[in-house]
Amino acid sequence: MPDARHDAPPELDELTRRLATVHDLRAASAVLGWDQMTYLPPKGGAARGRHLATLSRLAHEQFTDDRVGALLDALRPYASSLPADHPATALVRVARHDWEKAVRVPGAFMAAFTEHCSASYQAWATARPANDFAGIAPVLERTVEMSREYAAFFPATAHVADAFVDEAEPGLDVAAVQALFASLRARLVPLVREVVARPRPDDSCLTRGYPEDAQWRFGEMVARRLGYDFDRGRQDRAPHPFTTSFSRDDVRITTRLSHDDLRFGLFATMHEAGHGMYEQGIAPGLDGTLLGSGASSGIHESQSRLWENVVGRSRGFWEWGYPLLRAEFPDQLGDVTLDTFHRAVNRVEPSLIRVEADELTYNLHIMMRFDFELALLDGSMRVADLPEAWRARFISDLGIAPPDDRDGCLQDVHWFAGPVGGAFQGYTIGNVFAAQAYDRAIRDLPSIPSDVAQGEFAPLLGWMHANLHALGRMFDVNETVVRATGAPLSIEPYVAYLERKFRGLYGSGSDTPLP
Amino acid sequence: MPDARHDAPPELDELTRRLATVHDLRAASAVLGWDQMTYLPPKGGAARGRHLATLSRLAHEQFTDDRVGALLDALRPYASSLPADHPATALVRVARHDWEKAVRVPGAFMAAFTEHCSASYQAWATARPANDFAGIAPVLERTVEMSREYAAFFPATAHVADAFVDEAEPGLDVAAVQALFASLRARLVPLVREVVARPRPDDSCLTRGYPEDAQWRFGEMVARRLGYDFDRGRQDRAPHPFTTSFSRDDVRITTRLSHDDLRFGLFATMHEAGHGMYEQGIAPGLDGTLLGSGASSGIHESQSRLWENVVGRSRGFWEWGYPLLRAEFPDQLGDVTLDTFHRAVNRVEPSLIRVEADELTYNLHIMMRFDFELALLDGSMRVADLPEAWRARFISDLGIAPPDDRDGCLQDVHWFAGPVGGAFQGYTIGNVFAAQAYDRAIRDLPSIPSDVAQGEFAPLLGWMHANLHALGRMFDVNETVVRATGAPLSIEPYVAYLERKFRGLYGSGSDTPLP
Repeated sequence: MPDARHDAPPELDELTRRLATVHDLRAASAVLGWDQMTYLPPKGGAARGRHLATLSRLAHEQFTDDRVGALLDALRPYASSLPADHPATALVRVARHDWEKAVRVPGAFMAAFTEHCSASYQAWATARPANDFAGIAPVLERTVEMSREYAAFFPATAHVADAFVDEAEPGLDVAAVQALFASLRARLVPLVREVVARPRPDDSCLTRGYPEDAQWRFGEMVARRLGYDFDRGRQDRAPHPFTTSFSRDDVRITTRLSHDDLRFGLFATMHEAGHGMYEQGIAPGLDGTLLGSGASSGIHESQSRLWENVVGRSRGFWEWGYPLLRAEFPDQLGDVTLDTFHRAVNRVEPSLIRVEADELTYNLHIMMRFDFELALLDGSMRVADLPEAWRARFISDLGIAPPDDRDGCLQDVHWFAGPVGGAFQGYTIGNVFAAQAYDRAIRDLPSIPSDVAQGEFAPLLGWMHANLHALGRMFDVNETVVRATGAPLSIEPYVAYLERKFRGLYGSGSDTPLP
Repeated sequence: MPDARHDAPPELDELTRRLATVHDLRAASAVLGWDQMTYLPPKGGAARGRHLATLSRLAHEQFTDDRVGALLDALRPYASSLPADHPATALVRVARHDWEKAVRVPGAFMAAFTEHCSASYQAWATARPANDFAGIAPVLERTVEMSREYAAFFPATAHVADAFVDEAEPGLDVAAVQALFASLRARLVPLVREVVARPRPDDSCLTRGYPEDAQWRFGEMVARRLGYDFDRGRQDRAPHPFTTSFSRDDVRITTRLSHDDLRFGLFATMHEAGHGMYEQGIAPGLDGTLLGSGASSGIHESQSRLWENVVGRSRGFWEWGYPLLRAEFPDQLGDVTLDTFHRAVNRVEPSLIRVEADELTYNLHIMMRFDFELALLDGSMRVADLPEAWRARFISDLGIAPPDDRDGCLQDVHWFAGPVGGAFQGYTIGNVFAAQAYDRAIRDLPSIPSDVAQGEFAPLLGWMHANLHALGRMFDVNETVVRATGAPLSIEPYVAYLERKFRGLYGSGSDTPLP
């Protein structure tokens, strides 16, 4: 924790050192986790599980040490005497927040919960392909029960899910997310209806068979060009793409490639590069501290969605990128125009699977999950009723119904590998804030759309680095949003973006360049 | 620690748990170290250094906890009551040995020493290419001084280097190594003279340009065929090949490839596969404990040399392997006979660089380093005299002199990245014991040479697994050697092997198949 003030109390140094140990243990866990998802030999899993459990236990022990609590108490007056945006103030506040959370939940409960989640994941891995909801329902019931028990360790809140929402999105609660989603839903549902009623663009050009080597090359070129720094990161293959950070100078992304569908690898790489550039842009002084990560799941997701969708699916981006892509794949794309390609990667179509949903309908997948989480946690819905509720909601929101639970309520790993609560809202918050941040960036730097169309991404990335990334985890979601954009979180830029984009693509049929 | 005895005291459980934590921290460090040598982004080093320092500090703290000493004291009577080859006896003995070592050396000294070694390594990385011995001499003087200080933390021994030798080769001391080397030297020097006086085989077939992809493929095929289990390991590229183990089910090897010289990659892969198969063969019950690694540096090296040299440079091996190699590289080897190839990979020639030395002269490189370490530590040689002593010894042993220090006494990283003492003897002990173990294996299983010539390595590997690998680190070097081979460490099998092999190749000129 850099602190130029000469009057900083010695407790700050000690706290900083203790938290650095915790951070280093977590960073080591992250390296082991990355390796597990990329290069672990088939039989190496059992030992790896033991190593990770030990690191996690030690990090918890070090963090929940009484001495950390005493240091936080001792530092309270000092932290209050500093401006709110002083790193030491932020460190003490965030450390207090995390520490309260960590000491409230008994180790024995966490161990039991972790063990249950691990067993649940195993059961899900069998139940999903077998379409066996009845078989796994008792496991999910127990997860809901334990999620409630977890929430009960925290002071009573308006909704039982508040603890989970706050964990993912510090400063937000269920009511805030509900309000955000309700206003978004009111605008989104009509737009979805309008768009899906129009003829759908032909996207067959994306499934003509794309050699993976060339996809890899093109993806790395794009990530580098966007501004992902390969001197401070790398890309590897993983079955489920993810980004992980060991320090701002070692932020790794992963991707998956499909020979049969160009979209998977291309957009996964831009998505993960977005996460990666966020972590690479955190202020150097925050590195190695509790503040050296993203502000929340949703804010993190805003950066992946910004580069994947707002930039990566824009017409401007492909004005620059499409000639390069076509040069890499002349056999597949030689007869495909820029307009056809751009429409293809923006095809909107009600679909069953969240991770394959288009940019527009995606949020409906999220909102129903958020509602179901709340209902399961507050007892207004039983686990047994989930499959039918899922089908009903799909019909009402998207006009289609899953033929089975495999592609219905069993499709996501989240509830089967962790608590029920707080797992999904960040994806839509991310979409919303991506548009808001982009909107503010182009007001500050109006040349951004034309820069993008020339393959110049540094102005946009530089804006994000300076106004958002550098803040790291110093502030909660609300404060981060206001500091970055000058306004509270709002759906307006996002709705305006969606309407302009999809009415442009589906409405007039014109090919007006989009911002 | 598996223990079927129902009367095991509770202290054994607690000790086992505490040591498992230490082991897991070390395993995590090993993963971070592996990643550092294979995939670390260029700028990720600083943070990685911090993470490793924290893991190392925590492992040291956990291991040197007073409670571990108390448990070891409490378990002494129990351990003495069991047979010497009971795992609990071995665990308590080895833990005591390591613990004494760990508590004797003050943490502040170790931190200062580590920091010095790190600075020394940086200085060496500049000094070596600049051929600047004078510039780095003060650093090396300080290393010698600190190495002496380190040794002084241990009870007085016959030679100041005994602590280092015991650390690398538990149960051996300077006098034992000197005796071994003196007897070997007496037999080796005449053989080297005899061989280097003969015409040297043409090895130009090895430098005809070998595409690295095909080398990689061939190397992996060979490693798999030897018995290295890719389900419990993997091979990656690294600038300096090494093997590392996180558990017996995750043992990773690395190799380097040179387009211009087939030898580098091929023999590095077999060498590291040898190390890897040792770790993969340790008894499952020892996994995750202090006993779950090799017995010593030298014993470990015996397994790499066995597969690299005794097997990998034998004529029998190439009777099986050469047709496959030639099929992979028809342009390079189409006109090269098996005999020519086998002679080429066994070319003996006095050379300046240890890591490129042939099987026969290699040991002379080691012996001079061992002698110099002793002389530097006991004060009979000054650092300033090292370059001249190096030249003189090269002339007397090998008949050539290094033109400069870069390829003379500055060539090895060891003394510039760690203590002076105990760094080199293991390589020759490994050569000696490789022959002894092989000799015993073929006495037990006389079909091994003909198995090898048919590409069947399971009998030899199975013998090593059963008689050596399974023992892990339960016994010291002497005891391990006796248990594995029924006899104390002896140079006779090795000298006989060398004489038979190189007189066969260089003497009569016949192509008698070699065992």
